[in-house]
Amino acid sequence: MTASLTVGLIGAGYMGRAHAIAFHGVGVTFGPQYAVRCLSLADHSADSAKASARALGFEGAAASWQDVVRNPAVELVDICAPNYLHREMALAALAQGKHVYCEKPLATTLVEAREVAHAAQRSGARCFIGFNYICNPLLQFAREMIAAGELGQIVSVRGRYFEDYLSDARSPFTWRCERRLAGAGALADLGSHLINLIHFLLGPIARVSAVLKTTHSERVDPSSGLARTVENEDTAHVLIELESGVRGSLEISRIASGYKCGLAAEIVGTAGSIQFDQERMNELRFYSAGSVSGRRGFTTILAGPEHPDYAAFCPAPGHGLGVNDLKVIEVRNIVRAVRENGVAWPDFAEGVRVQEVMEAIEVSAHSGTWVEVDGGPLS
Amino acid sequence: MTASLTVGLIGAGYMGRAHAIAFHGVGVTFGPQYAVRCLSLADHSADSAKASARALGFEGAAASWQDVVRNPAVELVDICAPNYLHREMALAALAQGKHVYCEKPLATTLVEAREVAHAAQRSGARCFIGFNYICNPLLQFAREMIAAGELGQIVSVRGRYFEDYLSDARSPFTWRCERRLAGAGALADLGSHLINLIHFLLGPIARVSAVLKTTHSERVDPSSGLARTVENEDTAHVLIELESGVRGSLEISRIASGYKCGLAAEIVGTAGSIQFDQERMNELRFYSAGSVSGRRGFTTILAGPEHPDYAAFCPAPGHGLGVNDLKVIEVRNIVRAVRENGVAWPDFAEGVRVQEVMEAIEVSAHSGTWVEVDGGPLS
Amino acid sequence: MTASLTVGLIGAGYMGRAHAIAFHGVGVTFGPQYAVRCLSLADHSADSAKASARALGFEGAAASWQDVVRNPAVELVDICAPNYLHREMALAALAQGKHVYCEKPLATTLVEAREVAHAAQRSGARCFIGFNYICNPLLQFAREMIAAGELGQIVSVRGRYFEDYLSDARSPFTWRCERRLAGAGALADLGSHLINLIHFLLGPIARVSAVLKTTHSERVDPSSGLARTVENEDTAHVLIELESGVRGSLEISRIASGYKCGLAAEIVGTAGSIQFDQERMNELRFYSAGSVSGRRGFTTILAGPEHPDYAAFCPAPGHGLGVNDLKVIEVRNIVRAVRENGVAWPDFAEGVRVQEVMEAIEVSAHSGTWVEVDGGPLS
Amino acid sequence: MTASLTVGLIGAGYMGRAHAIAFHGVGVTFGPQYAVRCLSLADHSADSAKASARALGFEGAAASWQDVVRNPAVELVDICAPNYLHREMALAALAQGKHVYCEKPLATTLVEAREVAHAAQRSGARCFIGFNYICNPLLQFAREMIAAGELGQIVSVRGRYFEDYLSDARSPFTWRCERRLAGAGALADLGSHLINLIHFLLGPIARVSAVLKTTHSERVDPSSGLARTVENEDTAHVLIELESGVRGSLEISRIASGYKCGLAAEIVGTAGSIQFDQERMNELRFYSAGSVSGRRGFTTILAGPEHPDYAAFCPAPGHGLGVNDLKVIEVRNIVRAVRENGVAWPDFAEGVRVQEVMEAIEVSAHSGTWVEVDGGPLS
Repeated sequence: MTASLTVGLIGAGYMGRAHAIAFHGVGVTFGPQYAVRCLSLADHSADSAKASARALGFEGAAASWQDVVRNPAVELVDICAPNYLHREMALAALAQGKHVYCEKPLATTLVEAREVAHAAQRSGARCFIGFNYICNPLLQFAREMIAAGELGQIVSVRGRYFEDYLSDARSPFTWRCERRLAGAGALADLGSHLINLIHFLLGPIARVSAVLKTTHSERVDPSSGLARTVENEDTAHVLIELESGVRGSLEISRIASGYKCGLAAEIVGTAGSIQFDQERMNELRFYSAGSVSGRRGFTTILAGPEHPDYAAFCPAPGHGLGVNDLKVIEVRNIVRAVRENGVAWPDFAEGVRVQEVMEAIEVSAHSGTWVEVDGGPLS
Repeated sequence: MTASLTVGLIGAGYMGRAHAIAFHGVGVTFGPQYAVRCLSLADHSADSAKASARALGFEGAAASWQDVVRNPAVELVDICAPNYLHREMALAALAQGKHVYCEKPLATTLVEAREVAHAAQRSGARCFIGFNYICNPLLQFAREMIAAGELGQIVSVRGRYFEDYLSDARSPFTWRCERRLAGAGALADLGSHLINLIHFLLGPIARVSAVLKTTHSERVDPSSGLARTVENEDTAHVLIELESGVRGSLEISRIASGYKCGLAAEIVGTAGSIQFDQERMNELRFYSAGSVSGRRGFTTILAGPEHPDYAAFCPAPGHGLGVNDLKVIEVRNIVRAVRENGVAWPDFAEGVRVQEVMEAIEVSAHSGTWVEVDGGPLS
Repeated sequence: MTASLTVGLIGAGYMGRAHAIAFHGVGVTFGPQYAVRCLSLADHSADSAKASARALGFEGAAASWQDVVRNPAVELVDICAPNYLHREMALAALAQGKHVYCEKPLATTLVEAREVAHAAQRSGARCFIGFNYICNPLLQFAREMIAAGELGQIVSVRGRYFEDYLSDARSPFTWRCERRLAGAGALADLGSHLINLIHFLLGPIARVSAVLKTTHSERVDPSSGLARTVENEDTAHVLIELESGVRGSLEISRIASGYKCGLAAEIVGTAGSIQFDQERMNELRFYSAGSVSGRRGFTTILAGPEHPDYAAFCPAPGHGLGVNDLKVIEVRNIVRAVRENGVAWPDFAEGVRVQEVMEAIEVSAHSGTWVEVDGGPLS
Repeated sequence: MTASLTVGLIGAGYMGRAHAIAFHGVGVTFGPQYAVRCLSLADHSADSAKASARALGFEGAAASWQDVVRNPAVELVDICAPNYLHREMALAALAQGKHVYCEKPLATTLVEAREVAHAAQRSGARCFIGFNYICNPLLQFAREMIAAGELGQIVSVRGRYFEDYLSDARSPFTWRCERRLAGAGALADLGSHLINLIHFLLGPIARVSAVLKTTHSERVDPSSGLARTVENEDTAHVLIELESGVRGSLEISRIASGYKCGLAAEIVGTAGSIQFDQERMNELRFYSAGSVSGRRGFTTILAGPEHPDYAAFCPAPGHGLGVNDLKVIEVRNIVRAVRENGVAWPDFAEGVRVQEVMEAIEVSAHSGTWVEVDGGPLS
């Protein structure tokens, strides 16, 4: 039997920790053929790496991220470092022949994202970007229903991702507000997930018309105590047209009071409709026009073993998965792709495609016109 | 004491009947000072008028709509006839010095709507357009909350009005599909309510970027048995910017499977948010960022006597109003304006304004650009 | 054509007003054959009667309730007076050969309720008791679904009627707290509706095991400023067994914080289940075990024209009825029964049956044992 | 630093697997001081144990459960074997001085449960019973709110646990239907969780009045193809009175069509109310009578880092925990109790107490009377 996939993790913050939880859970959940060996961990300092390696169950700590990348025993490099470092780390890992698992975004600019994706393409390595929400059994199921035509012709798609982590004007300036470190604002942090979700369910976005706004244009920098200009947007409103011709809208904000993980999709068709909200991630609301008269309405489907990947967590329906379970599914997809030399999605090409949509949105907001998404092949 | 306001009703279809129910209920609900006397009714034929007058409790039937308009005993002419007749009837009623209560739309084109509104302005009569949904006690309350700043700065507004009455491609061609008779499609039938709702809650829409689509481009004309081209849109997607600078989106469709009266608004602010859906018209969901830690979340407020106009229907909270009750409030507003020479809204100027937004949407959809709403004063 | 049914109303408070609204609406809603003529109104004083007659659109005011009962032009006497007067008024009306429409309860004790029902039986008059909630189109539909076996074998019924109008211990002592005036407490005010609802959906209750509690045992009498003992229960918990063998529970309280009109039923079967809550009176939640795998779940059915009596209010689905519309259906039932010499339910026999269940609950709470409901035939 | 707690697991079915997932996750989630070492696993055969040990990430497989119990390296014996074996295994583990983690029920009869609890008491070992639902951060928070008096005086508690895994009469006879193997039916399988939940939130149940029913009284035994009598109940309805005097009801069924994990509690007070349903395990509905007029209603609180134990899984609110995460919290509680010699609950005394309530329910259902729960101290 093949040995467990060896992983080197770079970054032990919010996402690094979530990845670590998934690494420890994937083998027992999906079977030992998908088990991961937590080999080495790097963080912003060697001391921090040591503490985190212990906390997150890694066998060793690396003095630097370069050590992880160069470690011959590491098969998969997992990048959970700050956004502005993604490009450099990914290129280095690819240069060492590693498979790469990179948290979104691929880079802070489209040019750099394309550079990374090209490098991945040349290397032949398996490369993945961490859009975990689409791993939800109910979203996988929704995708199947749409593909099977259960909604008829698609009339409208509405995507919305609202959170409120910066809704208070008194929240301090952070790296998220700085273009160089974060790239775009809500668009990068939240919108990228939403764009990927639309791609997953309905295929590529082709054109956009958008507006962007920074409501809280200054925030106090805690290091100086002075007001500092926020360099990226709080909110985006976008009309979209997909390659399939389907139209709809996206709403994205990081200052939307009351929304904690408000990633929602509403897919409306002539024969049925679907509603999903991550805040009720174990429910899919589904309407079928074919139901019996007097008994029609939206049905609240609870996730259960009839839906893809649920049964690995629990044999009984309706018991509830959590957001960390989505990462377990994602990691299983990755291990499966690496070990079985198969395909996993979202790959770096999708990471680029998402960033192309983000750039089209920014261009449209600036020009006030419809803008085509540049989706030419990577070459 | 002043006698009851005398009404002449033109049209005894769906809306005529709903108005009649409200006329009979307004006095007993809001008090005899707002009572209405159902004097005369006209329909498409004299025979139909007689039957309808009896069915709807009118004292007399008129041989023609002209007879209603010319009847000196009639104070208020209520126009519930087909859309393409609104203009002519309204002008005739105004020429006779009547107050006018006209179902939306004011006319099938913007030019004609302006003509009617100008005539109303010159006449000095009280003129009202039937956008009843905004009479909901909870929407009145929401408007007050927004105006009082309870949501902080507004981040986003999303309006949606979906129904599915034409979602089936096999539904026959009707007058609703014909430009001359109906004007616009979903935009006129549903969108006009939605635009009015946005105006009511947040003020005028200033600019739009839109797309329109007719998914079922042909339907069988039952009179001929042949396919006939549908002349107006099934679906609209719109980005909006209000005069206040607030941005958001509108989604409108008459082929949205599963939605029966899906008029919904989501107003998101930095300090709070509001959600409303007509399908749960007795509920307002409200989030306040000022709530106590650990206890924050969207509160489902049930309509009750603390909210405007509810107590007239029921002294106990949460017992539930219905859509016909909204018409009773609307009629009370009209009688109050006429009898007390006061103001009621939406008036014909708002009717024009709504139609201006609709036209801007159509122009934008054609040009692919942002379009300003022409909101110059009527003069 | 038959003339409109003439009604004399006794009592112009909360319920009297609700009845008056329904009287004015029934003809225009259901057709002139069901129209009601509001002939005469009595209240606690002649002056009050005059004011109320004018406010509620009655042709005349009576100096006393006796005058209403003796008025030869009155066909139907409608009793909305305080509970403790129901018996005397109903007996007097029956003695005059009137049909009687009595708000619940029929009387403040079972003995008196039986006396009234016997008198009704002897008189041959049509007699109705005002349990309006069961007129809901969705509850009528639910009853049909249950009768048709769509739920399979019934496993459990849970009835709950919670309100919070007395939840505050500082709310003053009112007539509702006094045994002589009100009879039982929450059991009479709320529980009677709930019992009737169970009877309507599933047939008679046969046995009960119950506990009662008065949490706020004293309240300040506003007339004296002194504490006064509350003489009836705030809350009831009941196990029930129906004649059909179905088991379940009832929960009833007038001090249940947060519940405004919390009349709810949950009927669980082996092949399907139904949930209803009056606070969402336009929704019925329905599960069918026969649905397609992966798509099973509770469906939220919105009231629409496919459901009994809805279309009279609105031809379009999902637009929403209100609680006053339920009274309109109730009045239509009554007029139909009187005019067509047919049957309407709930009649006085059901009024007695409900009171028998209430008495059995009180006996059970006192004895701590299961108690049979005495449902012998009225004779 | 102390080494990880060593665990020996007996039984690798549904629950054994869920425990294993939690063992692998607890250290990375809550920190290495709570890490568990998966040492040895036994199953119904040595071969099965080997396969399961590999699948579930255990270091070794034991030839028999006795080998696990006798293994000197095992500190905690985890019993996930069939119910009828719990007693024997627990006694053997206690005899070897092990700490014991036993899935509910403690035994199939009250007598045996008491025997085990006495043995645990004498041994001084830490003993736990697996009622994981109460580990939910929102239920921990609800408990604090109730204890702090946020609901005022408690008016009513309603507990309900419905599932539908046996609702189909054609589902075959299994060990769950056999008294010797399972003990009680729905009462043991589902009711025990519900009783524990009530105890957790509100304290001990003191008295019950109950009915039990087996709707599907025979099922086909797949081994013989013949009908076989079901030996325990499908459904229970119970009135309860707590030691605190609070009253309420329990409803429990394994044939409740539509309910997948319908463990729900409704705690109603004079100043506030709480609603919880495991099918929406990340939501707590809370009403506070102290809210501002016009803005009152049930608030849907999403689980977040303000609630106990949530932050260990995710720093961001509203992202969603799953049922397996509850087991991780449970295991953390156990490791903490063992390592810090502290207290964890539910312990075996609670396991006995739950079984005492179950027995009181069965006695009451048989006698038709109220029955006291025998809650004398273990001694």
